[in-house]
Amino acid sequence: MQSNPSGRVRHRKRPSEADATKANGGQMLVDDQNKYKKMRIRTLSSVWMIGGFVLIIYMGHLYIWAMVVVIQFFMTKELFNLLRKVNEDRQLPGFRILNWFFFFTAMLFTYGRFLSRQLVNTVTSDKLLYRTVSGLIKYQMFICYLLYIIGFVWFILSLKKKMYKYQFGQYAWTHMILLLVFAQSSFTVANIYEGIFWFLLPASLIVINDIAAYFFGFFFGRTPLIKLSPKKTWEGFIGASVATILSAFLLANLMGRFPWLTCPRKDLSTGWLHCDPGPMFKPDYYSLPQWFPFWKDLEILPVQWHALALGLFASIIAPFGGFFASGFKRAFKFKDFGDSIPGHGGITDRMDCQMVMAVFAYIYHQSFIMQQDLSVDMILDQILRSLTYEEQHILYTQLGSVLRERLVGQP
Amino acid sequence: MQSNPSGRVRHRKRPSEADATKANGGQMLVDDQNKYKKMRIRTLSSVWMIGGFVLIIYMGHLYIWAMVVVIQFFMTKELFNLLRKVNEDRQLPGFRILNWFFFFTAMLFTYGRFLSRQLVNTVTSDKLLYRTVSGLIKYQMFICYLLYIIGFVWFILSLKKKMYKYQFGQYAWTHMILLLVFAQSSFTVANIYEGIFWFLLPASLIVINDIAAYFFGFFFGRTPLIKLSPKKTWEGFIGASVATILSAFLLANLMGRFPWLTCPRKDLSTGWLHCDPGPMFKPDYYSLPQWFPFWKDLEILPVQWHALALGLFASIIAPFGGFFASGFKRAFKFKDFGDSIPGHGGITDRMDCQMVMAVFAYIYHQSFIMQQDLSVDMILDQILRSLTYEEQHILYTQLGSVLRERLVGQP
Repeated sequence: MQSNPSGRVRHRKRPSEADATKANGGQMLVDDQNKYKKMRIRTLSSVWMIGGFVLIIYMGHLYIWAMVVVIQFFMTKELFNLLRKVNEDRQLPGFRILNWFFFFTAMLFTYGRFLSRQLVNTVTSDKLLYRTVSGLIKYQMFICYLLYIIGFVWFILSLKKKMYKYQFGQYAWTHMILLLVFAQSSFTVANIYEGIFWFLLPASLIVINDIAAYFFGFFFGRTPLIKLSPKKTWEGFIGASVATILSAFLLANLMGRFPWLTCPRKDLSTGWLHCDPGPMFKPDYYSLPQWFPFWKDLEILPVQWHALALGLFASIIAPFGGFFASGFKRAFKFKDFGDSIPGHGGITDRMDCQMVMAVFAYIYHQSFIMQQDLSVDMILDQILRSLTYEEQHILYTQLGSVLRERLVGQP
Repeated sequence: MQSNPSGRVRHRKRPSEADATKANGGQMLVDDQNKYKKMRIRTLSSVWMIGGFVLIIYMGHLYIWAMVVVIQFFMTKELFNLLRKVNEDRQLPGFRILNWFFFFTAMLFTYGRFLSRQLVNTVTSDKLLYRTVSGLIKYQMFICYLLYIIGFVWFILSLKKKMYKYQFGQYAWTHMILLLVFAQSSFTVANIYEGIFWFLLPASLIVINDIAAYFFGFFFGRTPLIKLSPKKTWEGFIGASVATILSAFLLANLMGRFPWLTCPRKDLSTGWLHCDPGPMFKPDYYSLPQWFPFWKDLEILPVQWHALALGLFASIIAPFGGFFASGFKRAFKFKDFGDSIPGHGGITDRMDCQMVMAVFAYIYHQSFIMQQDLSVDMILDQILRSLTYEEQHILYTQLGSVLRERLVGQP
C-alpha cells in the first residue's frame, strides 16, 4: 500500500478495484487468480481475529468491555481521518485536538454513568469511597456538559475566515461519528453486562452471516444483489440467511448452557459467576415421533425462539449497515475506511453491520426479555443497594401514599 | 422579500447586508435611517411575541408544551430547507418525505416516553387504559427503532448513482438537525413539567439579554466584539451581562412566589396547582443596616442564588449559541434562517441561544436542585411503571419489613 506524502489523508481517490471489476462485463464477478489469493489472506486474518475474540470472551466482562473501547478508539480514528484535508488542517492548529477532546467528553458521558453505577455495586462496603462515587454520579452529567460547552466555545473562537465551511463541516462530521460510535458501543457494553450471551450471540451471527455470504457468493454467486456493493450476490444473501437463522437456533442452545454467558454481572468483578439464569434458559422438552432414529425427545431453551428473531435481523436487515458503508465509500470515493486488517480493510469495514446489530440486540432484550425479569426482587435489591437509609425511608413513605391514593380513587 | 422562482430554496446567496455594513468602515456600525426603521419593526414584533408568550404561560403546562412543539416543527422546516438543492431534489422524488418520516420518528421517541408516563399518572383509575398505556411504554423504544430502521433501509434503497454525495450529505444534515432540535426541546419540556419556573426564568433571561444587548449596543456600541457577528459590540455584551444577572436575581424572587410557576406537574391535567414548593422557594430574612431608607429587612429566596448562575450563563455562554449560528450562516452564505418574524428573521434566528440555555437549565436543575430527589424519584417511577398493582403491594410490604427489621437490629 502506497502512503500519501502528507501521511494524513490516505484512503481517498485511489483507483477503485470494484469499478475495474465491473468493467469486466457479465462473467464471473472477480478474476480467478486474484480471487483465491485474496480469499487466503482474508481467511487467515479472520481465523486470527476469531481466536483472539474467543480468548477475550473467556477472560470475561471487563476485558470484553476493554476490547470494545479499543475498537471504538480505532474506528473513531479512522473516521476522523476520512474527511480531513491536509492543506486546510495546516492552517488550523489545534483543530485535531478539539476532535479528540469531544471524543473524551463523549467517553466520560457514555461510560461515566455506567461505570460509576457498577463501581457503587463493587464498593458498597467502604463508606467513604461509596460517597465519593455517588457524588461523581450526581455531577457526572453536569461535568460532561461543562466539558462540551468548553469544546463548543473553543470551536467558535477557533473559526477562521474562509475556512468556515470546512470547519462547520468537520464539526458536524465529528458529531456524527461520535454519535454513531458511542451509541453503538454503549449498547454493546450494556449487552455484555446483561450476560455475555446477549453480546456474543448477535456478534457471532453477523460474523457467520458475513462468512456464509462470502462462501455462498464465492461458489454460487451469479446474480448481483445491489449496485452499491458489486461483489454481493443474491445467492450469497439467501444462502447466508438460511445458514444464519439455523446457526442462531443452534448456537443459542449451546451458549445458553454456560452460566458464564447467561448470568448478568452487576459490578466490575471478574471472578466466576453463579446465578439462576431464569426461565429463558430452562429447557422445554418436546418428544419426537417414534420413527426418529437417534433422539427420543428434544431439549429446547425458550431463548432459542428469540434467537430466531436475532438471526432474521442479522441476515436481512444488518447487511444494510454494510450497504450504507459501501454507499458512503462510493459517495466520497475511497475504497476502505483503513488498512489495519489484511484482506478486510479498516476496522470500520468490519464493524458496519455489527453496529446495527448491537443496537437491535439491546432494544430487543430490553423489550422482550427483560420485562418478565424486572420483578419485585430485583427492584427491592436495587433499593437496598443504591439508596441511603434516609432515601429508603422516603421512598417507602412515597410509595405508601401513592398506593393509598389509588385505593381511595377507585370506586 | 423576493421569492426564488423555484419556491424551495430561498435564503441562499442573497447579498449579505452585514458585509455591506462592514465595508462602510469604522464609523457607526449601521447607517442611521435604516437603523431606526429596523428597530421599530423589530420592537413591534418583539412586543407581539412577548404578549403571546405571557398568554400561553398563563394557560399552563400543556399549552406551553404545544408551543414548544410548534416552534420545533417550524425550526425543523427552516433547517431542512436550508441546504436543499432544487435540481438534485427534482431527481429524488420522495426524498423530502423521508426527512419528515425521521422527524416523526424522533417525535415519537422523545415525547412518547414522556407523554405516556404522564398519561399513566393521569389515567391510573381506569384499569384497561392503564394497561394499554403501560404496554405502549414497554414497546415504545422497540417501535421507534423499527421505524428508524424502515427509514434507514428506505434511504439506502433510494440511493441514486451520481447523487450519493448529496444524499449522504442530506442524511447527515437531517440527523444533525433532529439531534439539535429534539435534544433541546425535550429538555425544555422536561423543564416545564419540573415547574414552569425552570422554563420561564431561563427563557426570559435570554430575551432580556438579547434586548439589553441590542439597546446597550444601539446607544453605546463602538467596539466590535467578534468578527462572526459584526453588529455585536463589547458595550452591548457587558451592559447586557450586568442587566441580565441583576434581572435574574430579581425575577427569581418575583416568579418564585407563584405556585403556578414553582409547582411541578406529574400528569397531563391543566387545572390549578397546589403544592409545597420546597425549601428553595421559602424566603430567608436578612436584616438591613439601620440607615437604609425604606426596608427594614430583605426577603431572599434561596433559589435566587441559583438564579445568579443561570444569569451568568445566559449572558456569558449562551451568546455563543448566537455566534455559532452567525458563523454557520456565513459559512453557507445566507443571511437569515427564514423570514417568518418581521425584523428578526426566521424562528431559528431567535432560538439559537434559547437552545443552549434550555439544556443548561435542565442539567443545572437535575444536578443542583433535584439532587436529593433524583434517585428516589427514578426508582419510584420504575416501580409504578414496570410492576403490576399486586407486585407494587408486595414490594411495599417487603420493603416495610426490611426497614422494620433494621430498626430492631440497631442498638
